[in-house]
Parts: sequence; C-alpha cells; structure tokens
Amino acid sequence: MKSAFRHQHPELQRDLPIGIFDSGVGGLTVYRALHERLPDERFVYLGDTARVPYGTKSLATVERYAVENSQFLEQHGIKLLVVACNTASALALPAIRATLSVEVMGVIGPGARAAVATAAGGRIGVIATEATVQSGAYARAIAQVDPKAAVIERACPLFVPLAEEGWQQGAVAETVAGDYLADFRDAGLGALVLGCTHYPILREVIADVVGHDVPLIDSGEATAREVAARLETNNLARQSNVSLANERTLCHDLDHFYVTDAAERFARVAERFLGSAPTILEAVEVWGHDELRTY
Amino acid sequence: MKSAFRHQHPELQRDLPIGIFDSGVGGLTVYRALHERLPDERFVYLGDTARVPYGTKSLATVERYAVENSQFLEQHGIKLLVVACNTASALALPAIRATLSVEVMGVIGPGARAAVATAAGGRIGVIATEATVQSGAYARAIAQVDPKAAVIERACPLFVPLAEEGWQQGAVAETVAGDYLADFRDAGLGALVLGCTHYPILREVIADVVGHDVPLIDSGEATAREVAARLETNNLARQSNVSLANERTLCHDLDHFYVTDAAERFARVAERFLGSAPTILEAVEVWGHDELRTY
Repeated sequence: MKSAFRHQHPELQRDLPIGIFDSGVGGLTVYRALHERLPDERFVYLGDTARVPYGTKSLATVERYAVENSQFLEQHGIKLLVVACNTASALALPAIRATLSVEVMGVIGPGARAAVATAAGGRIGVIATEATVQSGAYARAIAQVDPKAAVIERACPLFVPLAEEGWQQGAVAETVAGDYLADFRDAGLGALVLGCTHYPILREVIADVVGHDVPLIDSGEATAREVAARLETNNLARQSNVSLANERTLCHDLDHFYVTDAAERFARVAERFLGSAPTILEAVEVWGHDELRTY
Repeated sequence: MKSAFRHQHPELQRDLPIGIFDSGVGGLTVYRALHERLPDERFVYLGDTARVPYGTKSLATVERYAVENSQFLEQHGIKLLVVACNTASALALPAIRATLSVEVMGVIGPGARAAVATAAGGRIGVIATEATVQSGAYARAIAQVDPKAAVIERACPLFVPLAEEGWQQGAVAETVAGDYLADFRDAGLGALVLGCTHYPILREVIADVVGHDVPLIDSGEATAREVAARLETNNLARQSNVSLANERTLCHDLDHFYVTDAAERFARVAERFLGSAPTILEAVEVWGHDELRTY
C-alpha cells in the first residue's frame, strides 16, 4: 500500500496502526498507556535495542537513530507516530518531522502540560536521562504553558538499568532513589514528571522518597490522552466492530513488535512490563537500507 | 602508509601503535594496564560510545560492531589489535580474525590463564556481563588450561552504570555488590575474574563482599603481560630513545583516542579512569564507510 494511496482514502487510513518507537523496552509503558486508552487501535512498536540507551548519547547520534526508526515505521504503514522515548522527543522531533509525512507526537509536550495542570502553581520536578535534562526540553515546554512555573530537574541514569534488571523494589532501588531525589524531598513539589519511559516502573520507590502526596506525572498516560484527542479531531480513530475495551486483560496479539536486536531479552523484559510477552516479535535492521531487511 | 609497505619493513612496523577497542570507556582500564607495562609503546584507542553497551546485545550485533571497530583501527595503521571489551572478546574474536591481517588478542584467554595460575586448584569465580556469561567463553578458556577447574559465574549488569556514574563506593555500590556476590562469599574461591573492563573500578567494594583474601584477576593486567611477551617474541616491541618508564605520572599525550559519540562525556569519565583526560580525542564514524570519516 503506497503512501499516496493511503492519503486519498481516509477510511483506509483510519485502519492503519499507530507507530511507536523507543530506544528499547521502556517505551512499552507508553504503549500500555495508549493501548489501555485506545483499545480499538492497532499498534506497531519498534524498540531500538541494538543501540539502546539514547540517554547518554549526543544530539547528532540521537537524531540519526530517531530518523532511521521513524522511517522504518512509516514504511510499515502508520497513521500517526508516537515518539515514546523522552530523549528522542527532547532532541529529535524537528529532524523526524522534517522527513515524515504522517503526524508526529512526542512525550515531552503532553508531560509538561499535564505537569502544569496538576501542579497548579506549585514547583515542578523533572527527572529524566542525562541527555533529556541537558536539552532543557521539559523546562522549555513547561515555560510555554506557564512562564512563571519553577522547575527543578535531575538526571537519574541508574534508574534505567534498575528497571531493566527488575530491581524496582528493595534496598538497591531505595538507596539509589534516596540519593537522586534527596533535593526533591522537601522541595514542596506540586508535581514530579517521570521524564523517562522506564521511570514509571520505579513509581513506588520514587513516591516513597518524595512523598506519596506529590503527584507523579507519567508522560505516557498524558501522551495517550493527547493522542486520543488528536485522532478524534482528525477523524482518524479506528472504528471497531468488536471492542476489546471491556476485556479484563488487554490483548497484545494484534500488535506487531519489532526490535533491532536481542529479541529474547526484549520478550523477557516485556513480560515484566506488560504482564505477557508479545506474540508477534521480529528482529529487523533499520539503518542504511532503503527497503526493510529482516535478519 | 599502505599495509603491504608496512609488512615489508619490520623496523617501521615496530613504531606503529597498538590498537585497542572497547564498547566505550571501560577499556581504558586495559589501556592503562598496557600503558604502564609498555611505556615505550604508542596506542590508538577506539571507544564505540555510540553503541555502548555490548553486554546486553546479541552475538550477530556484537560481531558486526566489533568487526567495524577493528577495521577502523587497522586502517589507522596498527601492529597488533587488543580487543579490550570482554563481551567482544567472548563473542567476536573469530569474526575479527577473519577480516584482519594484524594479530588480534582478546582479554578472555589471558584472564582465564591468570585465574588458573592464581587459583592453584581452588574454585574460580567469574563475574561479567550477561552476554559474556551466556557465551560460556571464560568457562571454556579455563577448561582449556585446567579441565578439572570448578567455575562459578554470575552476570552483574548494574556494575557498568555504577562505574560510569562514578558510584564505585558508598551505600548503593555496597548493596548491589552484596546482592550479586552473595553466593561468592563462602564459595572458597581461589580467584575471582573481573570479566568486564568496568569492574576493576569497583575492586574495593567487590573485595569487601567476597573477602580481601580472594585474589581478584584483572583481565587487563593479564592481557598486558601477554601482549608484552608477544611483542618480544615477534620482534615488534618499540625501541624508544627516551623511556617514559621512570616518569611518575604516565603521559597520555602521545596516544590517540577515538570515540563514535559523545566525546565530552568520554573525556569526563576518562579523567576518572586515568587521572587525566586524553589530549587527542576525536569523534568518528566507523560504520558503513570504506574510508575514515570524521564529523
């Protein structure tokens, strides 16, 4: 199905999946949020596990990886792209939008808007990767909504390996969180943005440190709300005959998952993130090729 | 200087640098060991920081990255290649040797031989990345020297980010090490192999858990000894007029460091690993090009 054909037939376009990419497995928290809010939609997910993590890499490299991932998903046939990775959203949205014809939504804007709405004038904390914090993307996005908002940011690099290793609880997670978040404890936060897809996995231990009264903003959930609204506005929401909305367990069988490396490891971590491993999981190369090449 | 020319003039070949590559900054511990043992030699180091870490990636991907790095260094003009990365040594030596004309030495064999010699019949512990442990490379290499040696292995994925973040001491490092190494505490170890270039950074906290009486085998030091012997055997050792051997601080000014991404971050971590940041540090692309391309 060619792109031009798709654009001429909006009713077919509605049935196309939503593309999601992340640097690895962390974006599954965004996928889950989208899936729960939009049970009639189909998704195609790409985890760039061959080049994860992005959070310690440079602007030029993150841009290149993000554009390659986005082009791969566009070739697959999607109606909208969600950049689930906070680092890629912070650094590479302009580069992605310059090369794609479908709409592109990142997670920073939705997360920032949700934080301002929740904080109601209080200070906003942001925790994220080194690259995201250095980019200043959250601070800028928050200032666009509320120029007077006070923002404190902190990079928490060890949270990603902790989440991936399944160490979201216990002495190690508590000690690490206690160290990173010490300054946030008595900062009088009105909201704390979990500015990396992995961090919602550590939600409990983060709340234990900053206080359970501080609202935690999951950018994935905020993004899912904005994506749902966007699909309605653009008349792109999929109409399903059989709604899965009422099913107790969300089914991942109809969605397609790609990884650039180590599918087995992805499946194992995905099971922890989603409750069950993906059914359709394929390893692909996304770099240096015009056509898709499966290996 | 063309390769064919070099091979015809051994006296010129002696003056060529030794190539070292690693998935990132960790290999600097191997560089340091080589530099200390071979103060007259020059080195060219490549850290593949755009694609670090290797330890959670698949065989095919580690092979591809390792071959690209090795070809880059061979094009630079080297007399011998040291694969400093344990994961690449465990998975990719055959692939590298198939494409290179210079001699290639990994760190697994030297580490295994040093462990057997030190353990003197006692049990040998090996800690390494997930990929290295799964490859079984250390167990095989140890069995080649001593088929009766008892080996216990454990992957310690969080040690890498701990070392890179500079958290080699303190409550977090102690808790993580205590968890990973609990089974090693009373295992009656005759030697413990630090089977990842980052782990020597955590030497103190590792010794605190397994006991200061257990000898820790640094594969970098073992490799430096074998490289020195190999250069002598092959008459490839560099003859210097001005020996730097007696200088108090080893000088890195004459060695060339390349990274595939984020040179600033590399310089910062390198300073912690080496005591001073590299003088000649350059960012390069090593993939998909026949010629070197600097960006």
